[in-house]
Amino acid sequence: MGRKVYIDNKPLEEAQALLFRRLEEAGFFKLQAEEIDVVDSLGRITAVAVAARMSSPHYSASAMDGIAVRARDTFGASETTPIRLKRGEQFVEVDTGDYVPREFDAVIMIEDVNFPNPDMAEIIAPAVPWQHVRPVGEDVIASQMIVPALYPIRPYEIGALLTSGVRTISVVKRPVVGIIPTGTELVEPGVVDMAPGEIMESNSQMLAGMCREWGAVPHRFPIVIDDEELIKQAVIKCSQEADIIVVCSGSSAGREDYTAKIIGELGEVLLHGLAIRPGKPAILGIIDNKPVIGVPGYPVSAALVFELIAQPIIYRKRGAQKHEAEKMPARVSRKLASHVGVDEFVQVNLGHVGNDFIAYPLSRGAGITTSLVRSDGVIQVPRGTEGFEAGEMAQVELNRAPEIIARTLVAIGSHDLALDWLGNILNLKHGIRLSSANVGSMGGLVALKRRETHMAGIHLLDTDTGEYNISYINRYLSGERVRLVNLVKRQQGLLVKKGNPLGIGGIQDLIREEVRYINRQKGAGTRILLDYLLKAADIDTDDISGYEREEFTHLAVAAAIQSDTADAGLGIYAAARALGLDFIPVAEERYDLCFLLDLIDDTAFAAVMEAIASEDFRREVEHFGGYDLSLSGQVMWESD
Amino acid sequence: MGRKVYIDNKPLEEAQALLFRRLEEAGFFKLQAEEIDVVDSLGRITAVAVAARMSSPHYSASAMDGIAVRARDTFGASETTPIRLKRGEQFVEVDTGDYVPREFDAVIMIEDVNFPNPDMAEIIAPAVPWQHVRPVGEDVIASQMIVPALYPIRPYEIGALLTSGVRTISVVKRPVVGIIPTGTELVEPGVVDMAPGEIMESNSQMLAGMCREWGAVPHRFPIVIDDEELIKQAVIKCSQEADIIVVCSGSSAGREDYTAKIIGELGEVLLHGLAIRPGKPAILGIIDNKPVIGVPGYPVSAALVFELIAQPIIYRKRGAQKHEAEKMPARVSRKLASHVGVDEFVQVNLGHVGNDFIAYPLSRGAGITTSLVRSDGVIQVPRGTEGFEAGEMAQVELNRAPEIIARTLVAIGSHDLALDWLGNILNLKHGIRLSSANVGSMGGLVALKRRETHMAGIHLLDTDTGEYNISYINRYLSGERVRLVNLVKRQQGLLVKKGNPLGIGGIQDLIREEVRYINRQKGAGTRILLDYLLKAADIDTDDISGYEREEFTHLAVAAAIQSDTADAGLGIYAAARALGLDFIPVAEERYDLCFLLDLIDDTAFAAVMEAIASEDFRREVEHFGGYDLSLSGQVMWESD
Repeated sequence: MGRKVYIDNKPLEEAQALLFRRLEEAGFFKLQAEEIDVVDSLGRITAVAVAARMSSPHYSASAMDGIAVRARDTFGASETTPIRLKRGEQFVEVDTGDYVPREFDAVIMIEDVNFPNPDMAEIIAPAVPWQHVRPVGEDVIASQMIVPALYPIRPYEIGALLTSGVRTISVVKRPVVGIIPTGTELVEPGVVDMAPGEIMESNSQMLAGMCREWGAVPHRFPIVIDDEELIKQAVIKCSQEADIIVVCSGSSAGREDYTAKIIGELGEVLLHGLAIRPGKPAILGIIDNKPVIGVPGYPVSAALVFELIAQPIIYRKRGAQKHEAEKMPARVSRKLASHVGVDEFVQVNLGHVGNDFIAYPLSRGAGITTSLVRSDGVIQVPRGTEGFEAGEMAQVELNRAPEIIARTLVAIGSHDLALDWLGNILNLKHGIRLSSANVGSMGGLVALKRRETHMAGIHLLDTDTGEYNISYINRYLSGERVRLVNLVKRQQGLLVKKGNPLGIGGIQDLIREEVRYINRQKGAGTRILLDYLLKAADIDTDDISGYEREEFTHLAVAAAIQSDTADAGLGIYAAARALGLDFIPVAEERYDLCFLLDLIDDTAFAAVMEAIASEDFRREVEHFGGYDLSLSGQVMWESD
Repeated sequence: MGRKVYIDNKPLEEAQALLFRRLEEAGFFKLQAEEIDVVDSLGRITAVAVAARMSSPHYSASAMDGIAVRARDTFGASETTPIRLKRGEQFVEVDTGDYVPREFDAVIMIEDVNFPNPDMAEIIAPAVPWQHVRPVGEDVIASQMIVPALYPIRPYEIGALLTSGVRTISVVKRPVVGIIPTGTELVEPGVVDMAPGEIMESNSQMLAGMCREWGAVPHRFPIVIDDEELIKQAVIKCSQEADIIVVCSGSSAGREDYTAKIIGELGEVLLHGLAIRPGKPAILGIIDNKPVIGVPGYPVSAALVFELIAQPIIYRKRGAQKHEAEKMPARVSRKLASHVGVDEFVQVNLGHVGNDFIAYPLSRGAGITTSLVRSDGVIQVPRGTEGFEAGEMAQVELNRAPEIIARTLVAIGSHDLALDWLGNILNLKHGIRLSSANVGSMGGLVALKRRETHMAGIHLLDTDTGEYNISYINRYLSGERVRLVNLVKRQQGLLVKKGNPLGIGGIQDLIREEVRYINRQKGAGTRILLDYLLKAADIDTDDISGYEREEFTHLAVAAAIQSDTADAGLGIYAAARALGLDFIPVAEERYDLCFLLDLIDDTAFAAVMEAIASEDFRREVEHFGGYDLSLSGQVMWESD
């Protein structure tokens, strides 16, 4: 079946060096120029030095509003012996920027002139030759070099070039990046009702966006199915129309891997397999002296490989200085181990909590596009190093504007949809980004304890007292300055398929043989609630099939049931409604936000309280149903 | 004549606050949204939160290449008791991403499977339920919020949104900025042979470029002459077609100042006159609940006022976080005095010399567009402060990429056109920017002495020995590690009008009554040469008319002669040729580069030497004429 393992496992820097050397030899980086209108040159880079076509000013210009005179006519003028000058012959009126006629050599400010009659100007002080006269070329002199070659044009240069009579300039051509999505499973965005196994093609559009950010011109090809000949034709066409050839996916070791073979036939495969994670199954090659990049199919891998390999090529080809991503030191929230022989690139979320920025590693799954959306930057964990211990500082390469990162509130703990709406209002009305991670209520308390979050959403039932949250806070956060604010009260219940085909009536039905349960992870408030209910109902967890199968959010549980990999799970009404499931209420619980007061400043806290109290928040939540807002925004408890 | 002085002199922060408050009240910042294709949404900002339309994966997907099985069919499999599964019934082959059919609940990696025959798969280990199966919604779950409102779209979001079935999103409209150039003296770029008094209109294009950089859509109007009614019509049209109205120039107190009057008639003038320098004659107003900005005519003032006033409005209107310009601390090379009641904004050039970045204030002339081109950033000198002493640290707001600033070599001293060509080659071949300032040879030695430049171009004749440069270095740079390298030998001579109408034959003719001389500043090597020649020829400087009129560069001297404000000046052949003047040789001199070795690192120095030795440099210089390259690149002297 023609499977094969990766030929190589090349370290990144070697791979980059190899590709650059070969492109260098192939003359790929030779400057290609085009002549364009200066008015359209913003952000473009000059191919050759540009000299002024004319001087500015190109005539002797008045630097003041006043009268142009001959200095020698004014000598001797004083308070006691004023001098009168005749209009036309001995002076003309000039405004700032006006031409100072050849016969005059100085300008007197209008404030220093009297006009006893329209034809006469009277002055009481002499003029120094050339005073208030801008000489020709004071700004620019014809033939003077305005900008050198390989200079990026800013708005300032557009103004200066036009001023010096330059109308068109020669700039470096933008490299065209041909992007070919391959895969029989792919469908074009916009298709609805996709069949199982079909995947929305989105990588090519993500890479196209990256090209635009880097100053290249993306040229996206239509999807090519996994047919060797068709892919080959597409690559040939691409190598004719583009400067850089990118083949999306088809670079796994799966049966449809034709990319390497095709590159080998049309040109040369430089390597197949990078010693990075994610992104290992990358392919680098050369066809017609142009670089070819085979990017992996998983979006996170695709983005990383493209950034590491294509970005430097594009910048170099554009004649731009190597792009230095903004960096920021941050404290890693958990251990990042280093892997033998592999450089790992970890997407992280950043938040300013206490004195430091803290980097929260995001899901390592290469298929998780949402980890890219949540990502504020990347930490490289170099091979053969110690890696990073939890709490250690690491350099983060930012991929989001620092001003946004700086305005981030962190909420680590249990998840509730109300938190997303709250975040939306905070961003919309207060310019505060709410970055929330779902690790369950207990996980939230741990994060608070480790001072790694501003707040935690918790709904922890004290199974002895039936009271929520406070006893847990006393146990885990004793000594901390804590304030507990209710966000919502909410219905917990069993999520079941629409129409409840199995006729599930309550907890007791979970032991029925045909019922496949889907559980929440340990430490989740919902898990604690379930175990409490089971204990109360005297049900042995071993009797529940699927009890060991865990998901991390209400929506994930609902999704499992909707997709019929499970029949029932405990969760909130909002999740059932979101995915059109039936809901069998079993309990109402309190979902509170627990704040560490010395980690959140007053304005931010006030913003949160304002958002909770806002009409928009109440409307969203009530419209959704399954919530009770009678306590929302009330302080439930505060440490003294 | 309807002149008037500025009504106001309002501090910047008050002016900004006033305008913002009034726009707030006028509802100007109310979000305006438009629905666009996700594929076109790069850099746009969401107007409302966006939720997933479908889950991803939307089916149970294999996370591996292998076979999908029922876990229970595999229980008990081991090395000794392998289990065989029947194709179709008990297993199907799947690749990464393939659908795992409903009847199966686990995937076994292909590496762990044997195929004794095409219909049989043999396994030697059991599968755990749901192993290697990506649950529905592992990445995104339908209805889940992908991004909140007021979120800037990156390539990552484009990928994630498409993946979750979102094809169009509602984004904030880009504000349209209407820019009206006014002034009878203005001509459209591209016009050749302009008459004296005519000015190339370039400000509107510079401001348009700034708008684009800030995410707004510029809408440039044709030039309007200084006719009150015509300008009024243009402003009315603009207020109908644009969100922000910008009137260029016409905001001086000159006779053509209609802008304030017109704004007052069509709406309200909030203020006329800002307490900033440059940029005082700015006008802020409101028409139809839209902001109107009257920007001064001088380019440096126009750029500053537009940045200070329009940028925050545009960002706010776009729903973007306030833009924070990158800042850098730098040592100011000379005193920047603070002015009572006025915030001054000084354009500076930056270079890394020795241990610090040094900020070199550029010409304060508001009409000097080249000072904007040379500018790497701006230092604000707040009113009512001490200002900055020479050598003090100041914060510089960067307006150029730091990676370019970091790669800058500074050459302060005498100017020669060869220096520009050298700079061009350094940038082109070595990615090094040469930033040169023309302060004359003596000024260069002073800059070296103060360790504020990597090198200085000098041509200082020792009038006793006839030797060049070395005696001066010994006198002014004793104790420093200096290396003196020849750049060129060059002809100095008298620049005279084409055809030499006054029949000037040499130095002795400078005393002729009708000859208007134009001199170089004291400390310039050319000035020293002139004085030496005059002394030798026994000529009294008082007998030379124009001896006291000084320019700072060879080209400036040439320009004065070309524009007939002078008849003769001492300068280099290159300057004469550049402006088509005649040239009467009087001496050959050595133009050397003097390096401070502990300020310039070896690679940078090597790059300079390589550039001097390069074919390109020789070609440019020789092609220009008036130069002798026999010593170029040779070390003339070195301190021990």
